Amino acid sequence: VGKITMVEMNRRFKADWLREYCSAILEKLALSRDDGMTVADNLVEADLRGVDSHGVTRLAVYAERLEAGLVNPRPQIKIASKSPTAVLMDGDNGPGAVVGLKAMEEAIKRAKQYGIAWVGVNNSNHFGAASYYVMRAVEEKCIGLAITNAPPTMPPWGGKSPFFGTNPFAVAIPAGAERPIVLDMATSVTARGKIILAAKAGETIPLGMAIDSEGRPTTDPQAALAGAVLPFGGHKGYGISLLVDILTGLLTGATYAPNVGGLYNNPNGIQNLGHGFAVISIDAFLPFPGFIDRMDHLIREVRNAPRAAGTERIYLPGEIEFELRDKNLAEGIALSPHTARELKTLGMRLGVSWPFGH
Amino acid sequence: VGKITMVEMNRRFKADWLREYCSAILEKLALSRDDGMTVADNLVEADLRGVDSHGVTRLAVYAERLEAGLVNPRPQIKIASKSPTAVLMDGDNGPGAVVGLKAMEEAIKRAKQYGIAWVGVNNSNHFGAASYYVMRAVEEKCIGLAITNAPPTMPPWGGKSPFFGTNPFAVAIPAGAERPIVLDMATSVTARGKIILAAKAGETIPLGMAIDSEGRPTTDPQAALAGAVLPFGGHKGYGISLLVDILTGLLTGATYAPNVGGLYNNPNGIQNLGHGFAVISIDAFLPFPGFIDRMDHLIREVRNAPRAAGTERIYLPGEIEFELRDKNLAEGIALSPHTARELKTLGMRLGVSWPFGH
Repeated sequence: VGKITMVEMNRRFKADWLREYCSAILEKLALSRDDGMTVADNLVEADLRGVDSHGVTRLAVYAERLEAGLVNPRPQIKIASKSPTAVLMDGDNGPGAVVGLKAMEEAIKRAKQYGIAWVGVNNSNHFGAASYYVMRAVEEKCIGLAITNAPPTMPPWGGKSPFFGTNPFAVAIPAGAERPIVLDMATSVTARGKIILAAKAGETIPLGMAIDSEGRPTTDPQAALAGAVLPFGGHKGYGISLLVDILTGLLTGATYAPNVGGLYNNPNGIQNLGHGFAVISIDAFLPFPGFIDRMDHLIREVRNAPRAAGTERIYLPGEIEFELRDKNLAEGIALSPHTARELKTLGMRLGVSWPFGH
Repeated sequence: VGKITMVEMNRRFKADWLREYCSAILEKLALSRDDGMTVADNLVEADLRGVDSHGVTRLAVYAERLEAGLVNPRPQIKIASKSPTAVLMDGDNGPGAVVGLKAMEEAIKRAKQYGIAWVGVNNSNHFGAASYYVMRAVEEKCIGLAITNAPPTMPPWGGKSPFFGTNPFAVAIPAGAERPIVLDMATSVTARGKIILAAKAGETIPLGMAIDSEGRPTTDPQAALAGAVLPFGGHKGYGISLLVDILTGLLTGATYAPNVGGLYNNPNGIQNLGHGFAVISIDAFLPFPGFIDRMDHLIREVRNAPRAAGTERIYLPGEIEFELRDKNLAEGIALSPHTARELKTLGMRLGVSWPFGH
């Protein structure tokens, strides 16, 4: 009786250190130094932007699948078509971030030469946050799009069982003095992870987020987990999710809904995800300096638009994430005790030292 | 007292006849025979697909703006950039359907040569239903995208005043034995026209559709008309609407939110709309027959997915419109008495005969 529970505090980790640590683990799992840094950077960037769900918390399952031989640590990524601007790439079952970054670089190169390019990828794996790739396009004065299919979680509109993935898409557009606009969204109302959290906390979820196993709207997170997550915006989100699956899975010869392999709880199957990366070279249309002036102007007009009662501030897509990134770069990334322990255990097992007390 | 009101019935008109009639009116307004047929076909196709809001009901305002010299009936449409696959086109203030179709044809031609192409258009006008253009891509064994900006009706997320247009987008993807998938959606929850109808009928509107002039959610259609329509899917729809405006208005040098000129009640201003048309040649990725087999398979899997309680049938995007088109082609297009009278009056004034009793 009278047991005292220690509340574990989130500890903050410097991004550079975290990147090196994760990369060292990935090297132990047979990735090259460069590829290990790419995967690690992809995860750490998500944490920096406050998208913890796509951050270093994913390293454990990445490691598990590499160790099980379900992901190829040394892929021979190949271009499998001859078209100049619509390019099929075979990811050779490599780590998603490695394949994805290579595909985006190829799309940028070809867009600079021809104006616009699309690289479709098959035979790939979970690629982390889609925003990672489109930010590369922005650095090259281009507009970038990144999409991927994903394991089934959402029904078609009117259905009741998981069929489509949350099939996210990201688009980034450069600005001048202002920060780029970065739209990165799942095509579901919410992440399944948030429903799991509500179930653990004994809370209800808002109507419209999920359905039970009979397809009825529910506020009970347990019933929702036995049912399915709903697409955002009703039938419109369903249409967009379907479109993403067609442009990633169907068009590339990868698997597609509802047959996409899971990242978790799938110890015997590969994922064979499909991705798509598109790049538009802005100066094919307008001189770049004029375009970014126009972007700055638009961004300021949106920010200063008349606000609804109760709204403190109008945000541009990506703005919150840029502010979190500044803070996390300066102060370090706050990892939950669970995630920190998971990283430590993984490092200990693979011979990468964890230079902290716990 | 005891006044008897005649209930006017919708009359059905054959699509071929309606197309000829509208085209004859457009020729009287100085369009070439070909261009008149393009605009008429664009409107009639929308009516065939059951999208009355974008059908021949628009001819009156098109005529009004042509007569006022606000739209150029004989545009010199020019390609204004040198990139092979990211092409800027100057619409020379021509009718939107004429400019749009020309842009889509250019995108198809270049996609067939290079794999993918994007034609951005400035200096254009209302182009009708976006689905019209993407269906052309499907006929050419391609995937098509069409987007446009539009006069302000929606606030940015957290705002209270009209800023963005309903900025629609359409995508069509060919199938084999099945019909193409045709996704055509505004980025608003609903059309403003539906709120006007609710106001006339004295009905309320569902929460989440619109806000009042202070930015508060409202079910009162009158308050909503003084306020603004909301984007679909909350902040996600806002992001997509913003994206459409950037890719159409900003990228092409056309006007953009909130400065886009209105179609209605804008007797002194041109619209200077921006559009975007993208085409992907499927056989740059996969042999076309294999792709459409995969599409048929996916379509049937979606259609046969387990249904939620109360759902009779799961539809693919565009399926309802294809079925309406079959019906309307066979039985004729039902026009409201108001629209029929408007067409008749317009023809009488311009010397195009109306061969019906009323």
